[in-house]
Parts: sequence; structure tokens; C-alpha cells
Amino acid sequence: MEELYIGVDLGGTKILAGIFDSEHHCLALDKTKTKSEEGYDAVCSRIVETVRSAAELAGIDPEKVSGAGIGAPGSISSDESRVLFAPNLDWRDAPLKADLEAQLGCPVWLGNDCNVAAIGIHRLELEAKPNDMVSIFLGTGIGAGIITNGVFLTGATRAAGEVGHMVLDPDGPLCGCGTRGCFEALASRTAIFKKVKAAVKDGRKTLLMDNGGNSLTKIRSGKLRRAIEDGDKLSIKVLNETCFYTGLAIANLCNLLNPEVVALGGGLVEQLHATMMPVVREVALERIMPGARHVRIIATSLGDDAGITGAAILAHDHS
Amino acid sequence: MEELYIGVDLGGTKILAGIFDSEHHCLALDKTKTKSEEGYDAVCSRIVETVRSAAELAGIDPEKVSGAGIGAPGSISSDESRVLFAPNLDWRDAPLKADLEAQLGCPVWLGNDCNVAAIGIHRLELEAKPNDMVSIFLGTGIGAGIITNGVFLTGATRAAGEVGHMVLDPDGPLCGCGTRGCFEALASRTAIFKKVKAAVKDGRKTLLMDNGGNSLTKIRSGKLRRAIEDGDKLSIKVLNETCFYTGLAIANLCNLLNPEVVALGGGLVEQLHATMMPVVREVALERIMPGARHVRIIATSLGDDAGITGAAILAHDHS
Repeated sequence: MEELYIGVDLGGTKILAGIFDSEHHCLALDKTKTKSEEGYDAVCSRIVETVRSAAELAGIDPEKVSGAGIGAPGSISSDESRVLFAPNLDWRDAPLKADLEAQLGCPVWLGNDCNVAAIGIHRLELEAKPNDMVSIFLGTGIGAGIITNGVFLTGATRAAGEVGHMVLDPDGPLCGCGTRGCFEALASRTAIFKKVKAAVKDGRKTLLMDNGGNSLTKIRSGKLRRAIEDGDKLSIKVLNETCFYTGLAIANLCNLLNPEVVALGGGLVEQLHATMMPVVREVALERIMPGARHVRIIATSLGDDAGITGAAILAHDHS
Repeated sequence: MEELYIGVDLGGTKILAGIFDSEHHCLALDKTKTKSEEGYDAVCSRIVETVRSAAELAGIDPEKVSGAGIGAPGSISSDESRVLFAPNLDWRDAPLKADLEAQLGCPVWLGNDCNVAAIGIHRLELEAKPNDMVSIFLGTGIGAGIITNGVFLTGATRAAGEVGHMVLDPDGPLCGCGTRGCFEALASRTAIFKKVKAAVKDGRKTLLMDNGGNSLTKIRSGKLRRAIEDGDKLSIKVLNETCFYTGLAIANLCNLLNPEVVALGGGLVEQLHATMMPVVREVALERIMPGARHVRIIATSLGDDAGITGAAILAHDHS
């Protein structure tokens, strides 16, 4: 009987779960809202429900899988059993591995969401298997998975990879972390929403408004793409700023780490890569030193599935 | 008979050579100007002369040493035999290892100057031998030696570590590399000189002027220190800016790499660490994420000798 693996991408907004075969093909997937405000136990139950639903769609018994991998949005303990700190979920020191093993009835492997998605890209998308690679994920926030000398960069206290809090403009807008001008405060979807909100308050018109132009509740990446396709000037302007700062961040990372590949992912990139990538590449390549310029800057073709794919690979490799 | 090692720090301005015992103590050292404008062969001869002079001061025969290490200001080939590109010396693909071995009569080991100085700091100064460490050298330019997961970061094409070309302000001054707002263009001694020159042109008075206030030719770090000790307002202002951007760069590196130690060295830091370090630490710690905040930010006590010490260790380890 073929071995099967579960891959889970636990995000601040949604939970994605997929069933994968041993060659990392996705047989079925399902998703649900995270609803982290309902607390840790409720989120665990929702993860299990989503996995069971994906298994049902794939026509398999979830207890028959060889293992499950999960990418969580926070720092992971060195024994890879606990989520030490996940600000978007308001979790501290959560024993996620043990709790999910008890409820799923299979071994569970835990990783940081950005590192896990980077595993998916590295294994399934990049034939050359680069020893030095940076993956950047642009969405509500900005995160990264970094490989140097063939090994994931974790740092001294497992807090490495906070690309979103690289200061790119000391006079820039205030970030949630308290610093001015972080990459995340300049370029994330949250930053885009704040800029659009401020412009609307100043009387600017935009297709991003809801209800025939009366309110602005949230901006999903798909909505932003459609507004840009329809020529909405404000949307074009704010996306251009996101591309500029993304290019700047990539240049800084290339000058520092000299990777073979920079792969971009996350909701914004999945929806908008055709518009974004030429600008991002131009801004970056103008600023990368000659010795590091042979870098490939790509949008991952795995899109939103990079996380569940990498999580299933995590389980496959450990089983 | 005790084994002895030569350590050479080849800089854009000066050559420093030292004779070391097997416990990395310096027995004698000498220095001379690089005069790179005289060409590659002339610089090689000056390296050999400086080594011979240091050996004479130590009372030893230079042909009796076990090996020589040399840190060169550029990228080094993967077989560690050639300087691929050293912009400050105008060298491309220079076979420095073979040429010095022929002239010195002992094995020669070659490394990037910042990496070699980082070896000196790591081995001789840091008892904990951190697996994750950043060394930043502030002088005419700004360079770094970075260790992640216990290994020197070289990158895919040996171009990693260009901390000086991290953009910290996209509207900042133009850098020699063609980009605006690089760390080096904001904070190096070259940047300080340009700022002082511009202020003097605008009529500002400063103790940094030569000849009773009539001209401004160059600003050595020692001169800057004396002007600051004498309360020179312009000097205090420009050094404060250097400290601010150094703190910002350190915060970015800590959020990205999560090192145990950040060690600062180079001419500016050797002369001015007492004034600089409290400001640098404050700016950095305000911006480092909580998970990475347990970092030690220090000025190296090896001062200008970090390079020759690390070079001698390089030879010792390979012999």
C-alpha cells in the first residue's frame, strides 16, 4: 500500500490541509478559517477537522497516513515539539506536536511556516537544489525561509529570518513591532490597506471601496489584482511601492547572503506576480553587487500550496 | 623548536604584518603603506618586505616559519589561491598564494580580510565560540565576516557579506557602487569626510580643518576622536549619524541572522568605541525583535590587530 502524508499550513487567517502521496503530489486539500480568537484548543480541533475533511475528499482513512507535517506561524522549540511564540495566534509555548499526535493518531512534525514553505519550493520546484536560497512570503505580514551553506538558518535562539523587520527607511511608517520603516510596514498587504485607507480618508476614489464606494473593510490580494486590471490608479501606486521595497529588500539580502535563488510566495505574489515580478527584479538587480548578480529571482509556481507541500515533505523525510 | 606563523593584513591603505607563536601571541609586527597604484608586483614586494622587517624585529629567520596567513580586501577563489576581485587594489584574478609562497619560502593561506579578522575575534576573544556571529569593520569602507550554523557565510559565488551595501535609506547619499543610501555611504569614514567637506563648504567651522583652518585634506579616525574630545560640534554630529546607521544595520542583521555576538572593529571603532558603543547599542536594541535580543554587541579588544591575528590563526590551522 502506498504511503500517504498530511501537510498542514497553519496561518493567522486560514488553515490549509492536504493529503500527499510519497512523490509529493496533492491528492486532495481543504481549508477553513483559523479563528485564533477562539483559543488554542479550538484551533487544534479545527486543524484536525480540516485534515479529516481533506482525507475524506481523497477517499482515505486519516489514521492510515504515515505522518503529518505542519507549518506554524512562529518560532519553534529546538526539539521541534512546541510553538514557542506565535504573535498572530497569540500562542506561547504551545505543545502542538503532542496535542495533534493524540488527536490525529499519527506522528506529527512541526516547523516554522516560512521554513516549511521554503522546503516545498526547494524540493519540488528547484532542480538545482541550491545551497544558498532565500524564500520571501508576502501577505498580511512578511516572512522568510533562508538556507545558507545548505542548512536552514535558525540563529542562536531560533529567531532568525525576520526579513519583515529589516528597516528599509528610518523615516517610514510605524510597524506593529514599534520600529519605523520595517519592510513589513512598507510593503505587506497590511501596509497596502493602511495606505489605501489614508488615501480614501483624503478623498481619493478607488475601485477597492465596497458597497458602491461607501466603505473599505479589507483588501484581499484577488481584489487588488482586479482593481489593477481595471486600471485603478491608487491600487497601481500602492502595489508599485510594495514592488520597490520588495526589490530593495531582495538586493540587501543578495548583497548579504549571495543566494543562487530568491523565491517569492504568499498571497500577494500568487495573485499579482505577473505585474510585480518585472518591477521587483529591476529594482533588485540595479542594487545587487556584480559578484552576486547571477541570482534567479522567481515567483514560486507552487503558489499557496507551497506550505502544505513543504509540510508533507517534512513528514515524509522524518517518517 | 617552537612553531611560528606570519599573519598579514593587506588593506587598501596599509599592510600590517606580524610574527605569532603557536598560542597566537604576537612577537613583533611592522607596517607600511600599500601604494596599490604601483601595481600588483610592487604590492607583493612590499608585503614580503614588511614580513621580513617584522621577522627581524622578532629576531627570527622568516624562512623558518611554519606558514603565513593573509587577509586580502576582496573575494577569494574557491581553492583559496587567488584574489578574484579587490576593487580597492584594482586587482582581478591575482595569484597571490603562489606568488607569496615563491617569495616567502613558506606555505601561504589566503582569506577575505573581514573573514580573517573575524577568525581572530572568534578564536582569541570569544570564549563561548558562537555558532552565529557577525563582525562588522568600520573604516574607509564597511565590511563584515559572518558565521551562521558554525560556518563562514560565503554564498553561492563567494560574494556574501557585503554589509556595506545594505540600503538603509533609499533617499540617502549616492554610494560608490551606484546605489543610494548604502550603509557605507551613510556611515563609513569616507561618508564622514564627505559630510564634513560639504559642511565646511557651507561655512561651518570645525577642528578637523588643517593648517589653522584653511583646508581639509583627510580625516583619520584619531583626528576625529581628538576633535570630539575637544567638543567639536560638527564632529559629534557626524559621528552620531555613523552610530545611528551602525545601530540600524546591526538591528537588521540581528533580526535576519539572530547571532549570539556582534563584534565591531576597524579604525573608527578602535579610536572611538567609548563614544560610539553606547549609542550603537541603544539604536540597535530598540529595533531588535524580542526573540533575538539576547545578543552581545561589543567592540573587539583586538583592535587593529584582529586581521593579522586571524591571518596567523589561518596559517596555524592549515599547517
